[in-house]
Amino acid sequence: MRGLLVGRYQPFHNGHLKIVTQILEEVDEIIIGIGSAQVSHTLENPFTAGERVMMISKSLAKAEITYPYYIIPIPDLGRNALWVAHVETLTPPFEIVYSGNSLVQRLFKEKDYNVKTPPLYNRMDYSGTEIRKRMLLDKEWKDFVPKEVIEVIEEIDGISRLKEIAKEASPDLTDQSGVI
Amino acid sequence: MRGLLVGRYQPFHNGHLKIVTQILEEVDEIIIGIGSAQVSHTLENPFTAGERVMMISKSLAKAEITYPYYIIPIPDLGRNALWVAHVETLTPPFEIVYSGNSLVQRLFKEKDYNVKTPPLYNRMDYSGTEIRKRMLLDKEWKDFVPKEVIEVIEEIDGISRLKEIAKEASPDLTDQSGVI
Amino acid sequence: MRGLLVGRYQPFHNGHLKIVTQILEEVDEIIIGIGSAQVSHTLENPFTAGERVMMISKSLAKAEITYPYYIIPIPDLGRNALWVAHVETLTPPFEIVYSGNSLVQRLFKEKDYNVKTPPLYNRMDYSGTEIRKRMLLDKEWKDFVPKEVIEVIEEIDGISRLKEIAKEASPDLTDQSGVI
Amino acid sequence: MRGLLVGRYQPFHNGHLKIVTQILEEVDEIIIGIGSAQVSHTLENPFTAGERVMMISKSLAKAEITYPYYIIPIPDLGRNALWVAHVETLTPPFEIVYSGNSLVQRLFKEKDYNVKTPPLYNRMDYSGTEIRKRMLLDKEWKDFVPKEVIEVIEEIDGISRLKEIAKEASPDLTDQSGVI
Amino acid sequence: MRGLLVGRYQPFHNGHLKIVTQILEEVDEIIIGIGSAQVSHTLENPFTAGERVMMISKSLAKAEITYPYYIIPIPDLGRNALWVAHVETLTPPFEIVYSGNSLVQRLFKEKDYNVKTPPLYNRMDYSGTEIRKRMLLDKEWKDFVPKEVIEVIEEIDGISRLKEIAKEASPDLTDQSGVI
Amino acid sequence: MRGLLVGRYQPFHNGHLKIVTQILEEVDEIIIGIGSAQVSHTLENPFTAGERVMMISKSLAKAEITYPYYIIPIPDLGRNALWVAHVETLTPPFEIVYSGNSLVQRLFKEKDYNVKTPPLYNRMDYSGTEIRKRMLLDKEWKDFVPKEVIEVIEEIDGISRLKEIAKEASPDLTDQSGVI
Repeated sequence: MRGLLVGRYQPFHNGHLKIVTQILEEVDEIIIGIGSAQVSHTLENPFTAGERVMMISKSLAKAEITYPYYIIPIPDLGRNALWVAHVETLTPPFEIVYSGNSLVQRLFKEKDYNVKTPPLYNRMDYSGTEIRKRMLLDKEWKDFVPKEVIEVIEEIDGISRLKEIAKEASPDLTDQSGVI
Repeated sequence: MRGLLVGRYQPFHNGHLKIVTQILEEVDEIIIGIGSAQVSHTLENPFTAGERVMMISKSLAKAEITYPYYIIPIPDLGRNALWVAHVETLTPPFEIVYSGNSLVQRLFKEKDYNVKTPPLYNRMDYSGTEIRKRMLLDKEWKDFVPKEVIEVIEEIDGISRLKEIAKEASPDLTDQSGVI
Repeated sequence: MRGLLVGRYQPFHNGHLKIVTQILEEVDEIIIGIGSAQVSHTLENPFTAGERVMMISKSLAKAEITYPYYIIPIPDLGRNALWVAHVETLTPPFEIVYSGNSLVQRLFKEKDYNVKTPPLYNRMDYSGTEIRKRMLLDKEWKDFVPKEVIEVIEEIDGISRLKEIAKEASPDLTDQSGVI
Repeated sequence: MRGLLVGRYQPFHNGHLKIVTQILEEVDEIIIGIGSAQVSHTLENPFTAGERVMMISKSLAKAEITYPYYIIPIPDLGRNALWVAHVETLTPPFEIVYSGNSLVQRLFKEKDYNVKTPPLYNRMDYSGTEIRKRMLLDKEWKDFVPKEVIEVIEEIDGISRLKEIAKEASPDLTDQSGVI
Repeated sequence: MRGLLVGRYQPFHNGHLKIVTQILEEVDEIIIGIGSAQVSHTLENPFTAGERVMMISKSLAKAEITYPYYIIPIPDLGRNALWVAHVETLTPPFEIVYSGNSLVQRLFKEKDYNVKTPPLYNRMDYSGTEIRKRMLLDKEWKDFVPKEVIEVIEEIDGISRLKEIAKEASPDLTDQSGVI
Repeated sequence: MRGLLVGRYQPFHNGHLKIVTQILEEVDEIIIGIGSAQVSHTLENPFTAGERVMMISKSLAKAEITYPYYIIPIPDLGRNALWVAHVETLTPPFEIVYSGNSLVQRLFKEKDYNVKTPPLYNRMDYSGTEIRKRMLLDKEWKDFVPKEVIEVIEEIDGISRLKEIAKEASPDLTDQSGVI
């Protein structure tokens, strides 16, 4: 049996790693789908899909997770009702979906998938949002991610990137509300 | 003479039905354009274009509106200055445009269309936003829509869909502000 | 040496004109890239790319700026990590980038460009946001833009356009948050 | 039970009309899906979706087909594996699919739909390709389409349009083979 | 009065230059629209929009054409019926359109533009196709283009680019026929 | 050092497997980029990205290739000049590119990559085109692919899929030549 874990991994953190370990006790193979793969260089999505692939595969290798796994970038489609079919064309077939996002859960349930909320998902210290905030505020963040993730972020000068994006007080330039 | 009524119909409600009836006293044929047709499964746009087509055509049939009418899904284009030309390629030709949205009004006026604000448009109890809020809060909403719309929404388990979408406290996953 | 100045020019104002003049003291040729070129008829982006091309070229002609310059519309791409490569395919090659937007600065820095903040960029009275606010509130705005820009805006009935867009209290119709 | 008939209707002809009549003997409601809805002004697709909507609804009205039917423009998606899900979001639910195109048949079969080849589909004199060829060569074509289709084509000056498109000996300008 | 000249300029050649000169005797300002702006590195479209901007502006400068002119990249839209409106949003307003392409002519005529075929357009030695063929076959091509175009092509190593693209005997990798 | 091997793998065959093995003698890690990832159900691209991921990962596992490798679906972008930057955002960084396609080679060379033609690439019996032709003609094809690929193709009923796509004699429905 194959399971799909969907997330954005901005960045991949210790909570994600634990979830992967736990899922691998329930399924034979795991597909790690990297959502919003085409987005990067924003406050919510600072890292590219390729950088996130690196973070995940290096962390799994270090954790000696040698189970068969698939790491698949999944670009947004812009049409929620097609999104499950979109994921299906990009990945091997799967039976169980793990996600803590209730929209993702709903979309898969409407297509009759078995959907599970990953354990620990909501714990504050395993939150990408929290970690990005700490990066911005020069607070401790390295304790929350695998050592390999720190290395990737340092190699790409990721903290500077996040801080410079954040400096843009008014995201005026790219506001498109009201476009039909 | 043919008239175009543009709306999102999330959901199609009694106000819409009355507007259609009134417009049919002014024009020979009505085109009911379903805006943001590609969007669904969001708080503002919970229903698919196909579901909205169902709501409208069943309600019109029940109301014995047998006038010639066209129900046309209109996907967003993302470029306001092209939107009128986009609508023109998808529908039969029309002379009058009915819309309560001032952006839509402006775009058609710039192309020299005769634009009218539908009567009753702004009444609180004929508001899709209000109806969706009531659905979320388990308040009475069925009085505000045709019986056929209730049937469609129940068939697709629409209230659960809306509530599960709303549970996603932080729409963090899909924030793309700052993308150029 | 060729320099690129990126902006949205909504509208092109006296501050922009001064910046162009100053840049032309530092480079041989200037490329004026019109960002978010595909967007128009929104509060933040009321004018089309073609209208902005008009504003700029007429103002430069009047100011007797006969230096070689290029005015290039640059549509958004929706993928920050590709945006610099996208700009490169649309313009002649350039060595220096002038921008006051820290996201734009970051993206060019990651591709090893020499990036400069244009002087005066942040002065309140040279702000497109401020000028659009004044237009909406019937306050003085004509002092802040070249005379040719006033002419273009009047020819297209731009103040009415902006006011009608602003009337749409709730941008409800086109909200797509939560779309993946 | 609802059936879907997919075609491009370039133009809607007597064969299509007969097929619609026959299908209505088998199903309660018919959905007429207009494929490649976004394409027009080409040799294979001269007419816009709106023009095709007109041809079909006027012909059905004249033939006194008052059965409930839906005429839905379906833009191409560019991803065959998602196309069925795309159609599903735009139309009311359906159980049977009628198509003479083996790719369309295959895509619906993979999603477990009941697929039928419409009778008469391949008869030479009910072929859009043949009719367009006759239009180009000034040969008799009006016998093959409903009178209402002739009216629409004449109103839009459709034969001239087709001939001018055909004059472009080399489609050089828009060749994109080799683009990845 | 302003005129629009639409072409792909792959590459900009002496015929184009003569046409520009002649048009400037008929109009006050000329807009040179670069079609298929997003395409490059194909047999039919080897050069990027930016490279074509360079070819044109340098050639005009050398020819001492100091008339006001606009050089505007125009990406394909993929929807012929919207293409004229698309061009209108990217350029200053124009009254006359110059094009030798009968599809382009038709599209502008349907929007009531005054359309003219540029003189000399079809002469064999002023053909981009012929010039690209000569580049591939190591035959004389430099006589057919302005000296500034030769310089741009040499600077970007354009002949090698064209030859390497042509080596791909089978354009198999990117064939998308049959995609809906 | 990391190497990128780009192909469409329609299907993944013994030649691909040998190439992967050879490349792994030259690099530390290999990225297997699946090109035209969004295309499927066509004569040239019958299999989805997900199906191709399955073929490759199962074949590598069977061949006991346990080297670190990445299998990344790469959708077409439609803009050759941006394609390398697009690949870079989806994959870990790489230094060498392996491809037998001269367009792909050219694009990477223009971005200063070290590009190599994989050995054996052009041998007739290692050609996806040849294998798909054999599938269509009921000739022997299983000898040319790993056993795991046969299993995937049988599981998805791939030969029937290919044959039904091929039945569509005229790809008339989706011809878009002449669209700008």
